[in-house]
Amino acid sequence: MEEEKQEKRQTKPIRCIVKLGGAAITCKSELEKINEENLKIVSSQLRQAMVLGQSPSTKVLGMDWSKRHGRSEVSCSVDDFGYDAIIDSSRFIVVHGAGSFGHFQACKSGVHKGGLDQPLVKAGFVATRISVTALNLEIVRALAREGIASVGMSPFSCGWSTCERNIASADLSIVAKAIDSGFIPVLHGDAVFDGLQGCTILSGDVIIRHLAEQLKPEYVVFLTDVLGVYDRPPVDPNAVLLREIGEHLL
Amino acid sequence: MEEEKQEKRQTKPIRCIVKLGGAAITCKSELEKINEENLKIVSSQLRQAMVLGQSPSTKVLGMDWSKRHGRSEVSCSVDDFGYDAIIDSSRFIVVHGAGSFGHFQACKSGVHKGGLDQPLVKAGFVATRISVTALNLEIVRALAREGIASVGMSPFSCGWSTCERNIASADLSIVAKAIDSGFIPVLHGDAVFDGLQGCTILSGDVIIRHLAEQLKPEYVVFLTDVLGVYDRPPVDPNAVLLREIGEHLL
Repeated sequence: MEEEKQEKRQTKPIRCIVKLGGAAITCKSELEKINEENLKIVSSQLRQAMVLGQSPSTKVLGMDWSKRHGRSEVSCSVDDFGYDAIIDSSRFIVVHGAGSFGHFQACKSGVHKGGLDQPLVKAGFVATRISVTALNLEIVRALAREGIASVGMSPFSCGWSTCERNIASADLSIVAKAIDSGFIPVLHGDAVFDGLQGCTILSGDVIIRHLAEQLKPEYVVFLTDVLGVYDRPPVDPNAVLLREIGEHLL
Repeated sequence: MEEEKQEKRQTKPIRCIVKLGGAAITCKSELEKINEENLKIVSSQLRQAMVLGQSPSTKVLGMDWSKRHGRSEVSCSVDDFGYDAIIDSSRFIVVHGAGSFGHFQACKSGVHKGGLDQPLVKAGFVATRISVTALNLEIVRALAREGIASVGMSPFSCGWSTCERNIASADLSIVAKAIDSGFIPVLHGDAVFDGLQGCTILSGDVIIRHLAEQLKPEYVVFLTDVLGVYDRPPVDPNAVLLREIGEHLL
């Protein structure tokens, strides 16, 4: 039945899966600090990528009508939302890493190694999810402020689980329904249940691989803080930037 | 298949579904303001209700290891989490209303009336979800600080949807799995897809009714800002507090 569902939705392909690397959108050296400047630039660039064909001068219609810290007003300009105000959805999915969110909590408690019967792991599972969902909310808000109709979809809540740290179940029908309805799902690395060890960390990269395999997007784009893919860790002075990656290398 | 699943998990019943009324945990007269004092009292009382049999002097092991606004440190006391640190889960579910979160966004855009092809409704859907998930995160954090192993589960992300505003699909297996694993799911009123009108608002009360019908908890407790159930709106000076409600009245 799962396969049937997936075939049905393949009528209109996903255009792009975008990974917002944790290093790009957070300050990795400071605990739970968002790189606001990068996030704003990335959100604006994503908007431009999604609205190809629309004039760059078109007014941005913000969709985050919440209070901002330090400001008390909640505002929205209802009159701006005419019938032609929002362009057709571009069938994007955004997945983000955790950067300086979640890692501290996960490492401190060993959530990735499982063992929910241990109070420390159970508490770490809760703490990790609080941290990564806080980041997810801020990213959804940043995208929404750029007029991108984002909906946060936490893998744990969506019922994603692993077995031996590989994806065991991930119902993509909710993600697909959101895209079909004109929204941009925003997923993230999360603490999830694992069939073998109780729980683990499902990384943004594993989520991307699964989404790409199942939904076969035209593009997968990785935004990070280094200028490409290297043949070894880019901090190594001998690292060489790869100009092209053939499929046989993957 | 859905029924089979549900029968299986009825082996150990849910003890209690608690509704945290929006009026009780937020300041209804001020947009997007949490009633921190009430939320702290409620979280503490919930902890006491869940840990019956444990000494009230037992140290509270906080599970929110995130930064708090205005404080920079992220702290957790790993050494406190011995094997006997967390009592057995009490099989609770928490559902909260929106109070002064979400209502403004939903009303302004008419999300409850549907029509996702209208830019205003689509934007309002995004804005409403941002607001209610922000509240959910703060409630999960408040409960976690009281040592309650809370996991936020947003009905939209969980794939809940309605048809003519009645629940059409709601996979409770994720909620049940969380409870079986010793966590307290924290659900909330949310913007969801509707089979007939495209989208609507799924209220906390409808969620409670569905959970109660399916999971048959021993208790359903409503925490609100009035001292019980009245025969008419409690602001009416002639309203009479009902001492008992027979099943035939429901």
